[in-house]
Amino acid sequence: MKQFFSVHDITDLRSTIDQALRLKAHPYAHDTIGKHKTLGLLFFNPSLRTRLSSQKAAHNLGMDCLVINAGTESWKMEFRDGAVMNTDTVEHIKEGAAVLGEYCDIIGVRSFAGLTDRDQDECEEVLHSVQQYSGRPIISLESALRHPLQSLADCITIEEIRQKESVDKPKIVLTWAPHPKALPQAVPNSFAEWMNRSVEELGYDFVITHPPGYELSKEFSGTAQIIYNQHEALADADVIYVKNWSAYDPYGAILPEYNPPHVECPAEWTITLDKLTQTRNAKVLHFLPTRRNVEIADDVLDSPHATVIQEAGNRVFAMQTVLSTMLSAS
Amino acid sequence: MKQFFSVHDITDLRSTIDQALRLKAHPYAHDTIGKHKTLGLLFFNPSLRTRLSSQKAAHNLGMDCLVINAGTESWKMEFRDGAVMNTDTVEHIKEGAAVLGEYCDIIGVRSFAGLTDRDQDECEEVLHSVQQYSGRPIISLESALRHPLQSLADCITIEEIRQKESVDKPKIVLTWAPHPKALPQAVPNSFAEWMNRSVEELGYDFVITHPPGYELSKEFSGTAQIIYNQHEALADADVIYVKNWSAYDPYGAILPEYNPPHVECPAEWTITLDKLTQTRNAKVLHFLPTRRNVEIADDVLDSPHATVIQEAGNRVFAMQTVLSTMLSAS
Amino acid sequence: MKQFFSVHDITDLRSTIDQALRLKAHPYAHDTIGKHKTLGLLFFNPSLRTRLSSQKAAHNLGMDCLVINAGTESWKMEFRDGAVMNTDTVEHIKEGAAVLGEYCDIIGVRSFAGLTDRDQDECEEVLHSVQQYSGRPIISLESALRHPLQSLADCITIEEIRQKESVDKPKIVLTWAPHPKALPQAVPNSFAEWMNRSVEELGYDFVITHPPGYELSKEFSGTAQIIYNQHEALADADVIYVKNWSAYDPYGAILPEYNPPHVECPAEWTITLDKLTQTRNAKVLHFLPTRRNVEIADDVLDSPHATVIQEAGNRVFAMQTVLSTMLSAS
Repeated sequence: MKQFFSVHDITDLRSTIDQALRLKAHPYAHDTIGKHKTLGLLFFNPSLRTRLSSQKAAHNLGMDCLVINAGTESWKMEFRDGAVMNTDTVEHIKEGAAVLGEYCDIIGVRSFAGLTDRDQDECEEVLHSVQQYSGRPIISLESALRHPLQSLADCITIEEIRQKESVDKPKIVLTWAPHPKALPQAVPNSFAEWMNRSVEELGYDFVITHPPGYELSKEFSGTAQIIYNQHEALADADVIYVKNWSAYDPYGAILPEYNPPHVECPAEWTITLDKLTQTRNAKVLHFLPTRRNVEIADDVLDSPHATVIQEAGNRVFAMQTVLSTMLSAS
Repeated sequence: MKQFFSVHDITDLRSTIDQALRLKAHPYAHDTIGKHKTLGLLFFNPSLRTRLSSQKAAHNLGMDCLVINAGTESWKMEFRDGAVMNTDTVEHIKEGAAVLGEYCDIIGVRSFAGLTDRDQDECEEVLHSVQQYSGRPIISLESALRHPLQSLADCITIEEIRQKESVDKPKIVLTWAPHPKALPQAVPNSFAEWMNRSVEELGYDFVITHPPGYELSKEFSGTAQIIYNQHEALADADVIYVKNWSAYDPYGAILPEYNPPHVECPAEWTITLDKLTQTRNAKVLHFLPTRRNVEIADDVLDSPHATVIQEAGNRVFAMQTVLSTMLSAS
Repeated sequence: MKQFFSVHDITDLRSTIDQALRLKAHPYAHDTIGKHKTLGLLFFNPSLRTRLSSQKAAHNLGMDCLVINAGTESWKMEFRDGAVMNTDTVEHIKEGAAVLGEYCDIIGVRSFAGLTDRDQDECEEVLHSVQQYSGRPIISLESALRHPLQSLADCITIEEIRQKESVDKPKIVLTWAPHPKALPQAVPNSFAEWMNRSVEELGYDFVITHPPGYELSKEFSGTAQIIYNQHEALADADVIYVKNWSAYDPYGAILPEYNPPHVECPAEWTITLDKLTQTRNAKVLHFLPTRRNVEIADDVLDSPHATVIQEAGNRVFAMQTVLSTMLSAS
């Protein structure tokens, strides 16, 4: 595996999830395959969970880790070809990425969507530039369009729920939820993409629900059924995946009627315990951090429905699976 | 040991100090007991010595270390139960701490007193929240009320002095000193608490001296003798522990007559070489950083009386003792 | 080796370069000599390449690494002897360095020139204070006057070029280049010093070219030939070392006629592909980061002439050579 940008970089979903579950059962079974190998973690945006789970996954495999906060360490990078660098950018990505390639065997990169210029976000310039100029295997730590490590952790968690609850073909519902800020679509895009693949390969049932106007790009929602009535969508759900996102068209917009502070919280789309009565005792996932009583009510997060901590813990094994695969291939 | 918040978490002071001295003599004797274990260091306030000595202690035991600067890494935490998080806090401590618990086997937490609301400081919300929601053993890296790792390092240092100087029952004096800022009482509180225990268990003599108005909370000063005349208090001292603190009542206040810049430095309460003549060649301790010529004069810090560097070095072995004990118990 | 501040700390240039090349061929041959040893990296100025290559070099030798960003971690240090610290500095270097000496076996220090007070820059107060008060072997990670790890990496790279191109006595040209900011002289000072030594010990030919007014201090340029005509200087060059620097006299000045944005880029002194036709297929070095199309044109950096990435990679082996030598001596 030379890159982990999306579900398309995974050959077989079942065996990838199984590999992750084996690593979770025996996290130190391969604690020397990373010996003398270095993982670079390059953050153009802040990170906490991703950094910690990546460091831990690397440690579990015996890898060293170098963390670079590109946004805050006075290292403004130039991405434009042919730029005359006589103002504020101090290094071109061509050199910056190539030097990282000298120091690191595998590089993780985080760069969020700017949410102002859709075309620019969609070309994923940072991810592709680092890949092109470093010459190293690259792992997306969340890009403008996707968050594949999160999605893999979600798949691991859903499989654990499925086994524990003895559900053969779980119904998964991705639901939009309110949030005070305009957020990128990377997490729901990515989740939808992995769930559509799960429908094909694992026989899951997958539904998306959101207010009209919050349609995700067709590239990611694909053939998934979209139901605008949240109540109807949640019926018989086994897993509810809660997430806010901004509109895809107009790009980055918030539709004011559905978002606090304009509405009282819990709001119409907030996930509350009441809404779970119509489900099959559904487990609730969220990639975290979550805004309590805005996206999800306390009565859900403090109940056994909430599976968000287990889900965050699985980030380690998602990363460890990807690193193991890359290390084994090299 | 499930928590290290205060001297009350130590069963036997003598054996704890002896354990630390053995670790100092053979720091790598147990360099694999931390293998595959992760120490998380969560800082809500800045740290230098504490971070470095904790990282070194973890390394000495073969542990991995994850550092989280909660204050500066755009991760504003919510602590209020039932909060509707539609403004500036991005994660509730319930999730934040629980996720840390997934990634870390032991968690160290630093959170200073705010010095404005005494009741709020005294409930030690951060420390107890992280403990409650992470489900992991917790080490205080200085809280609103105490700095127990510093106090343990102080006890180690005093024992080294006692052995070297062949003093049977040393007289320890905690003295207030001037400082340009209002500082928390955590360090003197904690020192007093550990010294009162040393009086009981080790037979030390312990005296506190400060200007009237700087009385510590009775919870910490306990039965220690308070002498308002510094000259008198220092007589025959073997060890002088120098520290500034703000008033407990009115909480967080500076009494202007004793503090620079209102007074010339060295000031009335500054520790100078002159003052040591009446002692038994006393050693001078300070937890560092110290304001030279405000708290302690150059002629003391540059003399063999100063034992502050040895004391700072002992921070490693204080932390290593606590980590060893927690790791052995797990 | 107790310090690595300049080429004067190297006994024999040939054997030092050979040692580095052996380490590059077998980077993990000594991966336990740093066991239980700690490298402290103390940055008073930002760093990226230096931090990463130092961490990697330490890892390759089995050392632990502690990173301290003194500038940004609310730890303002006092350097003045006898200072009454009742304002903004929170710790004196006497204690600060001594405490680091307790936690670290070897300490690397970075402190740039301020470029306003030449005498102050030239006394290298930070470097010497940390050395004096820590009592540990010290490595300069770039000081006001020199960047010796960079220069050693440059020597390694030139030797690799020399061997690959089968050049017996390479001609090395250090050329000034435009830059929008006033930069310290540390890199060209240091490079000149190492090249003058290479002339003596290795028989290299070394020439410096820059506009009139940009003469380096004689202490560093020494007996090197200075040619003010860049075209003439570059003739028959095997290696071109490109760097901007500010004037030494008046100290820190920019001479406006040679610097963007006052001139169009590529400017008169920018290194372009055209200028390389008169060379012996010269390789182009730069310590990075470099301003594209200001210091060096795209057509050079994107061509096989550019050897800057290999040069940056050699920073690891420069550091590893110095660390190995210090560890072996201890």
